[in-house]
Amino acid sequence: MGDHHTIEDEREKAGFWFEEDVLPGLKVKMILKEISFNGESKFQQVQIIKTVFGKTLVTDGKTQSAESDEKIYHESLVVPAMLKHGSPKRVFIGGGGELATARECLRFPSVEEVVMVDIDEVVVNICKEHLPTWGDGCWEDPRLNLIIGDAYSNFESIGGKFDVVIMDISDPIEAGPGIALYTKEFYDMVASKLSPGGVFVTQSGSGDVHNFDDCMTAINRTCREVFDCVAPYTSSVPSFGGNWGFNMAWNSKDGEEKEEELKSWKTCLDINDRIKSTSHHDYSFYDGETHLGMFNPAKQLRRGMEKEERVITRDNPVFMY
Amino acid sequence: MGDHHTIEDEREKAGFWFEEDVLPGLKVKMILKEISFNGESKFQQVQIIKTVFGKTLVTDGKTQSAESDEKIYHESLVVPAMLKHGSPKRVFIGGGGELATARECLRFPSVEEVVMVDIDEVVVNICKEHLPTWGDGCWEDPRLNLIIGDAYSNFESIGGKFDVVIMDISDPIEAGPGIALYTKEFYDMVASKLSPGGVFVTQSGSGDVHNFDDCMTAINRTCREVFDCVAPYTSSVPSFGGNWGFNMAWNSKDGEEKEEELKSWKTCLDINDRIKSTSHHDYSFYDGETHLGMFNPAKQLRRGMEKEERVITRDNPVFMY
Amino acid sequence: MGDHHTIEDEREKAGFWFEEDVLPGLKVKMILKEISFNGESKFQQVQIIKTVFGKTLVTDGKTQSAESDEKIYHESLVVPAMLKHGSPKRVFIGGGGELATARECLRFPSVEEVVMVDIDEVVVNICKEHLPTWGDGCWEDPRLNLIIGDAYSNFESIGGKFDVVIMDISDPIEAGPGIALYTKEFYDMVASKLSPGGVFVTQSGSGDVHNFDDCMTAINRTCREVFDCVAPYTSSVPSFGGNWGFNMAWNSKDGEEKEEELKSWKTCLDINDRIKSTSHHDYSFYDGETHLGMFNPAKQLRRGMEKEERVITRDNPVFMY
Amino acid sequence: MGDHHTIEDEREKAGFWFEEDVLPGLKVKMILKEISFNGESKFQQVQIIKTVFGKTLVTDGKTQSAESDEKIYHESLVVPAMLKHGSPKRVFIGGGGELATARECLRFPSVEEVVMVDIDEVVVNICKEHLPTWGDGCWEDPRLNLIIGDAYSNFESIGGKFDVVIMDISDPIEAGPGIALYTKEFYDMVASKLSPGGVFVTQSGSGDVHNFDDCMTAINRTCREVFDCVAPYTSSVPSFGGNWGFNMAWNSKDGEEKEEELKSWKTCLDINDRIKSTSHHDYSFYDGETHLGMFNPAKQLRRGMEKEERVITRDNPVFMY
Repeated sequence: MGDHHTIEDEREKAGFWFEEDVLPGLKVKMILKEISFNGESKFQQVQIIKTVFGKTLVTDGKTQSAESDEKIYHESLVVPAMLKHGSPKRVFIGGGGELATARECLRFPSVEEVVMVDIDEVVVNICKEHLPTWGDGCWEDPRLNLIIGDAYSNFESIGGKFDVVIMDISDPIEAGPGIALYTKEFYDMVASKLSPGGVFVTQSGSGDVHNFDDCMTAINRTCREVFDCVAPYTSSVPSFGGNWGFNMAWNSKDGEEKEEELKSWKTCLDINDRIKSTSHHDYSFYDGETHLGMFNPAKQLRRGMEKEERVITRDNPVFMY
Repeated sequence: MGDHHTIEDEREKAGFWFEEDVLPGLKVKMILKEISFNGESKFQQVQIIKTVFGKTLVTDGKTQSAESDEKIYHESLVVPAMLKHGSPKRVFIGGGGELATARECLRFPSVEEVVMVDIDEVVVNICKEHLPTWGDGCWEDPRLNLIIGDAYSNFESIGGKFDVVIMDISDPIEAGPGIALYTKEFYDMVASKLSPGGVFVTQSGSGDVHNFDDCMTAINRTCREVFDCVAPYTSSVPSFGGNWGFNMAWNSKDGEEKEEELKSWKTCLDINDRIKSTSHHDYSFYDGETHLGMFNPAKQLRRGMEKEERVITRDNPVFMY
Repeated sequence: MGDHHTIEDEREKAGFWFEEDVLPGLKVKMILKEISFNGESKFQQVQIIKTVFGKTLVTDGKTQSAESDEKIYHESLVVPAMLKHGSPKRVFIGGGGELATARECLRFPSVEEVVMVDIDEVVVNICKEHLPTWGDGCWEDPRLNLIIGDAYSNFESIGGKFDVVIMDISDPIEAGPGIALYTKEFYDMVASKLSPGGVFVTQSGSGDVHNFDDCMTAINRTCREVFDCVAPYTSSVPSFGGNWGFNMAWNSKDGEEKEEELKSWKTCLDINDRIKSTSHHDYSFYDGETHLGMFNPAKQLRRGMEKEERVITRDNPVFMY
Repeated sequence: MGDHHTIEDEREKAGFWFEEDVLPGLKVKMILKEISFNGESKFQQVQIIKTVFGKTLVTDGKTQSAESDEKIYHESLVVPAMLKHGSPKRVFIGGGGELATARECLRFPSVEEVVMVDIDEVVVNICKEHLPTWGDGCWEDPRLNLIIGDAYSNFESIGGKFDVVIMDISDPIEAGPGIALYTKEFYDMVASKLSPGGVFVTQSGSGDVHNFDDCMTAINRTCREVFDCVAPYTSSVPSFGGNWGFNMAWNSKDGEEKEEELKSWKTCLDINDRIKSTSHHDYSFYDGETHLGMFNPAKQLRRGMEKEERVITRDNPVFMY
């Protein structure tokens, strides 16, 4: 049956493609090498495919994460917030069906409990089966409390405080289930459930110069209504079509200057030491220099944040393409 | 998991496509609903997919036959030649891996033996498993003598004469295994192995006005070197990208005028009676009126045949795109 | 600047494409060599482009006619109806902005007046400028009475009878201007304005086996409500994506049998003589054999006509994709 | 003719697309709104088109620069090197046909002469006409010495030293004219022609994690053979398909530690002050924070640089896709 290289070459000849919308008038087009799973859950279309980015989870026609760069995305989402806190014990994850967000949290020995709430059991099970390296067996870690259900209501009803709250959900699209999880109302609740020194982080859609104002700036603006310090940051995740956006937020300790605290985080030079004293993991993507690159986004993005006036609420939602 | 309609709608959103070359600068692009099989044999890439044309066999990136119109192709290839002969007993099929060509031959009660030689056992087996309605169980008919091997050398070595010889092989592409089966040398051998009243037919590539001269006219010209009567004809097979070409050829009986015989076949008005007295099958596509449509191709095609000067030989092969 | 061949090769490298929808889940994709005109009229987007099919008029994203096969389309639409009548003096054309339909009518020396009504002056002028061989100067023929306006109301108000009425308008799409021109109400008016022996013909959308029932069968069924004899027919027009459908209709003369008259037209063997004694033109596509091919469509199409129950009226319109 | 918004919406319906290869099996697909120029020079295909990224120069099917982000690319290429030097008087530009690289150099009042050598006069003239904001009239600045010719031989023969040498040429592709400009031989010559404190910078192809090792790492490795200090850096240029790579290089002054000098540049915190005291321009993209983001690339890229062993020479060239 020939070697790997030959098969891939031939497949290109066969002309199977996955075309994914980036924004109106812009698509990314990838050779489709395989459709390993092709079904639908109560909530969405679910596929496991293989492209030039390796194995990929696709829901409703959108890449959720891909083998070649899932570590960039998941390390970017999880590790800075964990290091900012320093010694997180209890973590909440909204979404995260691929289980890779939980994997990154559970690397930290300080962590005693990860509460993860994902709405779609089909996705979770398909990822365990088809993308086992994403979760890396973390579903057997007794510290993981995996709840299938609505993240909003489960977060609302669960008792106790959290040191880190991580939102790893789909972009806010019209009629999407996650729309409430991008509102000021939700962030107010997050703030009330963070322990002192607690940190919130949310994936925030595209961070590219031509569409960061689809939702990244609005999420940033909404966080600033609730939190003292909000650090927008980006990482390049090619399978998502370019730079990807995140917002990390916290309330400053008494007596500290917000501006100073934000600045010291953006130019923080002891990230490598922090890693050594906490997770002690040799990350694929994240380290001290990467940190500087991530947390110092380009001028256009910072100007976009400054100019943004939209505060997302239940009555004034914001939708992505 | 929702109904059929919903799944197809959603799949379009997902953006999986099969792009197939028609000619340089022209492609057909079909929604790819499924990849049921994805492998390679010793000879070629082999896939079973599902598109807007239904289940489809694809080899080396080219549609071989599709659920929605395989009957148009296979009836067009087989039935006219069988009816022209009238009461065929022994039939040879070169290629025909989907087993649908054999199916059509074996519908004729007069047939005592069908010798079918296909080079690719993987294709034959995959079609039995994934496209069972193509062969429709004909592989269990004891009249079928299925040989896996090279059609040229097997045809050469097999004893006896044939009433109908049918070539159902891939288009002549450079380095393709079938190239020798489109040469004057092969057609000379066919003529020598046809019984009196015997008929030869070969699929002949595209019959569309913009590319019938890729190979259809050259095959026609080559047949005319060997046979008295050559009837080029076309059928519309949408999954192949438009009109498809065939050439049917025979040597006239003593005393008959070639021109008259050809013309009487092209305007033959008793096809429905012939069907009733032979296969007695209610075809999807082929009947008396369809016959007139098929065997009276447009003026451009006929002019193309007249002007064609290429005779295909081993030393002067013709290649398609 | 290199020769023609080199430029085309390079352009393929440049990757400009025109993707055109055929039906949901099926597109044709053509190399786009040039955009010569790119504007919009009051009614539609209008472009003149160059593809593998040569210069092409595109309105609202749909190919209207292309250099490589416009003669197939226009000869198919016009010539059979003109020959059926035999000696047409007054002809009405609805639509026909490219002026090629008028060109074919005016080739007949018997013609004294062609009344052509097209709604879009921009299209007419752009075609004169960019596609001059389509109209071939016929706009200077004093027999052409070109009216810019609505075909329905102009046809209604114009006095006198017509020997041939030809509808060369866009497919019936929702909100398209031509929707009323595909209704029983319009056909009733046509019948009342045809002179004895008069013939009506309309382009009828795709005639391919997978979508002839989008509108071709419904137009056929509607014509049968109004006319004694309706002959559906098809021609292969590759730039339209495959076989294209037409319906030709007339009321039989007293005493003739409808079935017999239809059949004699479908198997008519003196087309070449009719051409010689009327237009005396050496057509690219149409002649006696082509006639047999066109008017004897495949069994599926004929079955589709028989089964069709939709009669198109203003209250029950039919829309294409 | 409707407003801008309507036209763009309709154009999407029309289905004109520009598909550009990123790497084998990955394409970017953009709505093509306009082809303003479509020709070829002695060296390459040249087009000016309009896409979702605005007006775009395309040569041989590759985006060269686009309205929406040309400033990101050109500021990234030019400004850091100019600031590193501090007060450049004489600058050499290899390539730079769009004239935007010259524009950025000439913003610095210290500059007395910019020698720019581009091979393709057609590109230079087309850009002046169709992309006038790129050059912004700088071609009338008497300090610009624009030479049409081969960059290698012109650089070789020109007398005197340069403070900054900037290579703004196409990626090294097989048979491309610029291949010699990416070799150690050329960099040796550059080093010999730099004045004390002089800085060299070259665009270096994709800086994305999945293909930065196509050539960015090899260019980095080759620079390190010739220069003491080499700073690889990236900027996100969406119209190029993601992160774009650059290498900036210089020889350290006597007595300075190379490692220290590199590190102090990567974490340089006085960029905003340097801008104020030199060009004093309010850049779209580049400022102090952007500098930190650019010069601290992700861990994978840095590891890729460390592992790279390919030194590009005339005898061992490296080619991109």
